[in-house]
Amino acid sequence: MIPVPRQEDVLNGPHRMEKDLLGPLAVPADVYYGVQTQRALENFKLSGVPLAHFPKLIIGLAMVKKAAAAANHDIGQLDDKKFEAICYACDRLINREYHDQFVVDMIQGGAGTSTNMNANEVIANLALEYLGHKKGEYKHLHPNNDVNMSQSTNDVYPTAIRVGLQLSHSELVDSLAMLQAAFAGKRDEFKNIIKMGRTQLQDAVPMTLGQEFGAYATTLGEDIERIGGMYELLLEVNLGGTAIGTGINSDPRYAVLAVDHLARIAGYPIRLAADLIEATSDMGAFVLFSGMTKRLAIKLSKICNDLRLLSSGPRTGLFEINLPPQQPGSSIMPGKVNPVIPEAVNQVAYQVVGNDMAITMAAENGQLQLNVMEPLIAYKILESMRLLQRAMDMLRERCVIGITANEDRCRELVDNSIGLITALNPYIGYENATRIAALALSSGRGVLELVREEGLLEESLLTEILKPENMVNPRQRSI
Amino acid sequence: MIPVPRQEDVLNGPHRMEKDLLGPLAVPADVYYGVQTQRALENFKLSGVPLAHFPKLIIGLAMVKKAAAAANHDIGQLDDKKFEAICYACDRLINREYHDQFVVDMIQGGAGTSTNMNANEVIANLALEYLGHKKGEYKHLHPNNDVNMSQSTNDVYPTAIRVGLQLSHSELVDSLAMLQAAFAGKRDEFKNIIKMGRTQLQDAVPMTLGQEFGAYATTLGEDIERIGGMYELLLEVNLGGTAIGTGINSDPRYAVLAVDHLARIAGYPIRLAADLIEATSDMGAFVLFSGMTKRLAIKLSKICNDLRLLSSGPRTGLFEINLPPQQPGSSIMPGKVNPVIPEAVNQVAYQVVGNDMAITMAAENGQLQLNVMEPLIAYKILESMRLLQRAMDMLRERCVIGITANEDRCRELVDNSIGLITALNPYIGYENATRIAALALSSGRGVLELVREEGLLEESLLTEILKPENMVNPRQRSI
Amino acid sequence: MIPVPRQEDVLNGPHRMEKDLLGPLAVPADVYYGVQTQRALENFKLSGVPLAHFPKLIIGLAMVKKAAAAANHDIGQLDDKKFEAICYACDRLINREYHDQFVVDMIQGGAGTSTNMNANEVIANLALEYLGHKKGEYKHLHPNNDVNMSQSTNDVYPTAIRVGLQLSHSELVDSLAMLQAAFAGKRDEFKNIIKMGRTQLQDAVPMTLGQEFGAYATTLGEDIERIGGMYELLLEVNLGGTAIGTGINSDPRYAVLAVDHLARIAGYPIRLAADLIEATSDMGAFVLFSGMTKRLAIKLSKICNDLRLLSSGPRTGLFEINLPPQQPGSSIMPGKVNPVIPEAVNQVAYQVVGNDMAITMAAENGQLQLNVMEPLIAYKILESMRLLQRAMDMLRERCVIGITANEDRCRELVDNSIGLITALNPYIGYENATRIAALALSSGRGVLELVREEGLLEESLLTEILKPENMVNPRQRSI
Amino acid sequence: MIPVPRQEDVLNGPHRMEKDLLGPLAVPADVYYGVQTQRALENFKLSGVPLAHFPKLIIGLAMVKKAAAAANHDIGQLDDKKFEAICYACDRLINREYHDQFVVDMIQGGAGTSTNMNANEVIANLALEYLGHKKGEYKHLHPNNDVNMSQSTNDVYPTAIRVGLQLSHSELVDSLAMLQAAFAGKRDEFKNIIKMGRTQLQDAVPMTLGQEFGAYATTLGEDIERIGGMYELLLEVNLGGTAIGTGINSDPRYAVLAVDHLARIAGYPIRLAADLIEATSDMGAFVLFSGMTKRLAIKLSKICNDLRLLSSGPRTGLFEINLPPQQPGSSIMPGKVNPVIPEAVNQVAYQVVGNDMAITMAAENGQLQLNVMEPLIAYKILESMRLLQRAMDMLRERCVIGITANEDRCRELVDNSIGLITALNPYIGYENATRIAALALSSGRGVLELVREEGLLEESLLTEILKPENMVNPRQRSI
Repeated sequence: MIPVPRQEDVLNGPHRMEKDLLGPLAVPADVYYGVQTQRALENFKLSGVPLAHFPKLIIGLAMVKKAAAAANHDIGQLDDKKFEAICYACDRLINREYHDQFVVDMIQGGAGTSTNMNANEVIANLALEYLGHKKGEYKHLHPNNDVNMSQSTNDVYPTAIRVGLQLSHSELVDSLAMLQAAFAGKRDEFKNIIKMGRTQLQDAVPMTLGQEFGAYATTLGEDIERIGGMYELLLEVNLGGTAIGTGINSDPRYAVLAVDHLARIAGYPIRLAADLIEATSDMGAFVLFSGMTKRLAIKLSKICNDLRLLSSGPRTGLFEINLPPQQPGSSIMPGKVNPVIPEAVNQVAYQVVGNDMAITMAAENGQLQLNVMEPLIAYKILESMRLLQRAMDMLRERCVIGITANEDRCRELVDNSIGLITALNPYIGYENATRIAALALSSGRGVLELVREEGLLEESLLTEILKPENMVNPRQRSI
Repeated sequence: MIPVPRQEDVLNGPHRMEKDLLGPLAVPADVYYGVQTQRALENFKLSGVPLAHFPKLIIGLAMVKKAAAAANHDIGQLDDKKFEAICYACDRLINREYHDQFVVDMIQGGAGTSTNMNANEVIANLALEYLGHKKGEYKHLHPNNDVNMSQSTNDVYPTAIRVGLQLSHSELVDSLAMLQAAFAGKRDEFKNIIKMGRTQLQDAVPMTLGQEFGAYATTLGEDIERIGGMYELLLEVNLGGTAIGTGINSDPRYAVLAVDHLARIAGYPIRLAADLIEATSDMGAFVLFSGMTKRLAIKLSKICNDLRLLSSGPRTGLFEINLPPQQPGSSIMPGKVNPVIPEAVNQVAYQVVGNDMAITMAAENGQLQLNVMEPLIAYKILESMRLLQRAMDMLRERCVIGITANEDRCRELVDNSIGLITALNPYIGYENATRIAALALSSGRGVLELVREEGLLEESLLTEILKPENMVNPRQRSI
Repeated sequence: MIPVPRQEDVLNGPHRMEKDLLGPLAVPADVYYGVQTQRALENFKLSGVPLAHFPKLIIGLAMVKKAAAAANHDIGQLDDKKFEAICYACDRLINREYHDQFVVDMIQGGAGTSTNMNANEVIANLALEYLGHKKGEYKHLHPNNDVNMSQSTNDVYPTAIRVGLQLSHSELVDSLAMLQAAFAGKRDEFKNIIKMGRTQLQDAVPMTLGQEFGAYATTLGEDIERIGGMYELLLEVNLGGTAIGTGINSDPRYAVLAVDHLARIAGYPIRLAADLIEATSDMGAFVLFSGMTKRLAIKLSKICNDLRLLSSGPRTGLFEINLPPQQPGSSIMPGKVNPVIPEAVNQVAYQVVGNDMAITMAAENGQLQLNVMEPLIAYKILESMRLLQRAMDMLRERCVIGITANEDRCRELVDNSIGLITALNPYIGYENATRIAALALSSGRGVLELVREEGLLEESLLTEILKPENMVNPRQRSI
Repeated sequence: MIPVPRQEDVLNGPHRMEKDLLGPLAVPADVYYGVQTQRALENFKLSGVPLAHFPKLIIGLAMVKKAAAAANHDIGQLDDKKFEAICYACDRLINREYHDQFVVDMIQGGAGTSTNMNANEVIANLALEYLGHKKGEYKHLHPNNDVNMSQSTNDVYPTAIRVGLQLSHSELVDSLAMLQAAFAGKRDEFKNIIKMGRTQLQDAVPMTLGQEFGAYATTLGEDIERIGGMYELLLEVNLGGTAIGTGINSDPRYAVLAVDHLARIAGYPIRLAADLIEATSDMGAFVLFSGMTKRLAIKLSKICNDLRLLSSGPRTGLFEINLPPQQPGSSIMPGKVNPVIPEAVNQVAYQVVGNDMAITMAAENGQLQLNVMEPLIAYKILESMRLLQRAMDMLRERCVIGITANEDRCRELVDNSIGLITALNPYIGYENATRIAALALSSGRGVLELVREEGLLEESLLTEILKPENMVNPRQRSI
């Protein structure tokens, strides 16, 4: 939570006075942010989550500011000294220093103006100190005139979010790939454990536990690729569009220069959007990216539902696998251990779906040349990405890698199943199969037992058919 | 799906010409609707679901039109003959006749104007025929001047929706009450069947199957009461507010008279809202009502998830209950029967949640003195109510009343469970209990078997403790 | 709505008896569907929307059935005569004949079994008649043994949905492309009309109306490309996986053959999924595809919100553009015309978002080897696609192409705006600009008037600066 | 963000060893929580939001623990000394002390077990110190055996959430009532300012600005009442149900005693649920309560959309009202001030809707005797309530109370409007009215001007009709 100093408290402590269009305001003496950040702090006490909680966004902002400064320097509008000082300040932020100075609430009005000004002010004051001045002596280097030169919140902020997402993106994919590998490891480990497959929660036909875990690896593998592709969405930026995308009051050379510098600084092939007016208000990339996080969340939730089902028991459930215990389950019920890790992943997934809905409504409610709901969109996407990353790490470390199979239980369920009759279908005929199935169900006996009793198949053929490798793959009937 | 005749097709068949502000248009000769309905038909080909699919909404419209006519007649603005004819026409609609003339798509622009005009035109033409005139001879009785007298779509349409929801409401509650009674019946039928309760899908402690089904009856019972209370929300109407709630151009006596007539005709204690301007644009009642349908949907879905889990098997699942088979489950797997009825209820529930989201967005996007998204709101609430009603009837008739218990299986799971040790806790001590639980799990043996082997309890006391009535209720330890 | 004949009604009319595992049932004599469809009809009376409402899905089913028959024929399991008859029947359906025989409700339990059986039975009876037999004489050609040979609902149904979506996909993209072209046309038409841009609903800086409409064209153009890419998602199918993806009881050659035939018949590069177990239960492609429809819906909704804002008035709104009138707006307010077409598009968009939510929940609730909620997923995606297509056609035909500009009003708003001062910023300095802006606001006078009065700029330079082409693009300050 | 000390870091600093079923673990020496909290800290690093962020929930937990202790003491199972010590500890927490010891992540698996154990451990260690023992000397007073006596997470946790919501509830209603009062103040202040009403964003008929703001007061007033009623939902608790609601191993007197104590301690008429099994797993109250927060969010969002529209401009928008400026709007556009406060409220509203969706999914996915997703439900409801409260305070303090009207602008728009003709309708006839309206639109002249020019009405009557009080209410035509 952000402690929000009231103006009277600020005035009672060491402070400096700053002013803007609305008049003078006290700012604590030792902070690097300035008057507009102070105003935003007092205006927006909502989520309690400050910008500092999302370091990648701050780094993105610093990269954009550095790129803009470089372009202005190239054009000759920013002198060498100021340029050097601004670069110094941006580099501090890129190096994860001074992030505690980013205090504005993630939920804010003004379409990100407060975030942009928080960056402008912190960079200006860091630069001022670098140049040997005191904080607040903006006549030497100004947050708006110098740090924000040729820029508008409306192009800086969307661009910084995109850079922030790119930086977050690879971490997300890494966690996903490690989780995928953990499931792939279990696929190999369990490849010879035969078990019953289930459709509609009813006994179906045999498969291996390895096949089941392999499907989890496959489905996550698809998302590694798919999220990778989404990355492309984030490369187009509107930097240089200034207020509404027309580039008013900016030098015609500026936009291309700034974006080239940004690509170099960030190390990504960032490029200028073709239609800057569209790019200024369009949230489509975020909607699709959020939709992709939702898809991943749903897949993880489905997998965790399965893990909880498969490990249910120990005596009155399916109990085909064991999840590693992470905490005692119950004080009142001795020995109970619960699937707490998958349960937590499910909840993360539901929050990600909820975030996607918030993003959807925010995206729909943009108007004319700008979408003022962008701060919420940035907040919720970054939160979803972080939640998913942490949930996947937790799931891998504290659950998947420690899963063991109850091989005997799996085999026993296959042997007792009526679904086994499906494999005999081609040999004893559909009519016999149906009759045996009904008899097994009513008598409580096993289908193999009944088949043997009736002498419907040679024992050697039966053995052959029931070999795992023959049951869990297509095979020619001539065998 | 609505077959939409194009203007050229209409012109090729028998037709009459009508006109409005936008000019003349051909209408098929035999239809009761007129030019504005024809225009709406050509404008809106979206959902393919015509007004006629929701008879209660049409009846609501007819009741409002009749009430307005009565108020206008009282005030002396509508003569006896026209009043009689309009009443005749409205009564036909209230009697479910001529509903096929309500052809406009449920999704429409214009905040319900097309719906209102569809009603005005059908009523006018029915009234004209009653008076011995031909369809379209509006000089004798006019859709706008007479049928819509003192009214605006902005007060008629929201009022009619409320009446339509009231009419639908009692049917929904009836279906819910019958389903609740079906579960209560099973609660009594299964009251002596002891089984294991499960938390987090792990074995917990014993309960009766009757308690489990009783909980379903209880939770639905709460909704009977709660939905009953929601009904109250729908009684306040803005009839008489005309265009924006100021009642412009209406007689000061009109609003109260019209609402009194409506209450009498509909048979509900409908009353005039205190703030007609607020009542004209506010969608709050619909949002809350939809939220209530969502709550019911979620409860039904949770119950159906449970029914599918409890009936899973027959050999590799919980298999504590049997759902009555409704259709063969699989051509490839002999004897498979699936829980198709609960599965369908789950899907209905998800659609109801989706509808609630659509309603939420529609409600949020009203602007200033009117919410133009009201047609979608009406459509989706009515659809949700009907889906829920049908799903509950299906669930009761084709599933719940036919559910049987696998009593032996339930008992066997209790006897083999480790959770049984919880009941012995107060007698053998927590330490012994934990030790026995661990031994049972590792050895695969039963806890009672181990307790008996070790002679930890007298057989008679053990028998006493394990009596169902003692395990499934609080009891004093001195027993 | 589907009229559902009750069994007693069927028995009272001409009928034939058929039977399945659950016993005999009467089917109307003249229908091509059989006992299992009849059972589903009686089981599921929910949405009232029959399969027949989605012809592309039926064509998809027929293509899959034809492909499977061809593979079975290749392998030697289906004789020439039966193969020919099944092909004949499938071709009828592909040719859009007999679709009225697809009567099952789109919402159904059983994971699509009823849909698959509806297809199997209709195809079998069509084939029987082709072979000179009567309907129901399944000993000659059987719905399960022959039409469904080597298949399971669990592979046929997901595959058919994918084919159905591919068929719907190109129509959607066509409508989108035409709408995009309509906006591009307006972009060109309005390229010289200067107007004020607005951010946060506050006056910002000048732009052209062409730029504004161009942004709509651009944003939709991105979706043409993006939805095109999504198409790729739908090409991987699990045909041949049978019950759970292991391909049990199918010939090892079958899967590849069937998929190759399907690709040939459908004319798409359909291919076999690498992991059929994963492909059987995974709904990820549908979630992402639905997410894409949601993105398009949100874009359309944002555009329509803008169109309604820009055309607001005529006297008390922005009134920069005129939408073509489609219907009289109000009986009580003479001359009122409302933006009914964009309003209807907004509502479609909200329904599409709601559908996406329903799909999300359905996808999350799959369990183990199958997602039984797939019928809802198919229904809602197909519905969203159709709604979007119709809404885009409506928006193009009945709104966009008829939009006209109020050029004088646009220019007047620019001339009176205070935002114009931004363009003078580089010439008169920030201080002067701010002072003039404040003076204009307090006095109600125009900024240009004040600038002229104070003689701050040469008239010729002022004229140059205020040229549209100079205000709506980046420009060098040296000019 | 919660700093999570890794076990190795804990071991390197001053620490004490504790143990549970899973073995020994180091806990920092100075903390009041114990081994199970430490485990949860290491397990769940997800949202980064610790329990301590929701003080009301901690107070609710402490009240429940105190009530349970009192009941155990009454029954004679807890001795005087331990009872006194536990009461002491609970009172510290109720007094908002030691909340920083509640460190577990709000998102957690285990259905709240970690939250319950965090409370048990902190209370035990506070009580131990009170009794003169050291932290961790549980033989004198044990977190499970003593603090958690007769309890299960499954009854304690849901009960504590309800108490926490009750405590939060009144604050929410207070903020709502103050906001409502602020709008009511504006209603009175603006009661004589006449302006144009708008429907479908098109000019409609006159009203007063007071009526417009009065509608906001009315709609919020309805929610004061409605949310008040929701409070009732939260009074029924399942305390005493223990593991699954059967009350296993609890004394038959315990449940009633504990709930009575809780009602006394909390000061609310809390009562025992009739069906404890249902009450243990049912999330219905939370779903409905969340739905109510959603309704409030949507109303606030709609109001803020309106405020942004009405204050749009200053020159190219509606500009009927002024919002008090809170921060400079733009560095690039001199003098721009944006509606940042309503914009932030919109975003809060979207997050609340997203939270409702997360809650919906969590509620739907409960299984059998417990809903393990309850931690997410508690988190998101508490978050929504807090966000709404803060947003409403912000909206009142920083926006509504400072809103001023542009009376001349409002009047001018009325005078120039064509909608004014509606008021003349009854006097000059519909035909004349329509003609004048069309003429005004095409010529750009005013309707009054034209009416006067044509001499259609006596000036004195015109003056009378156009009096605000006559235009904004129903009136008899005889005037």
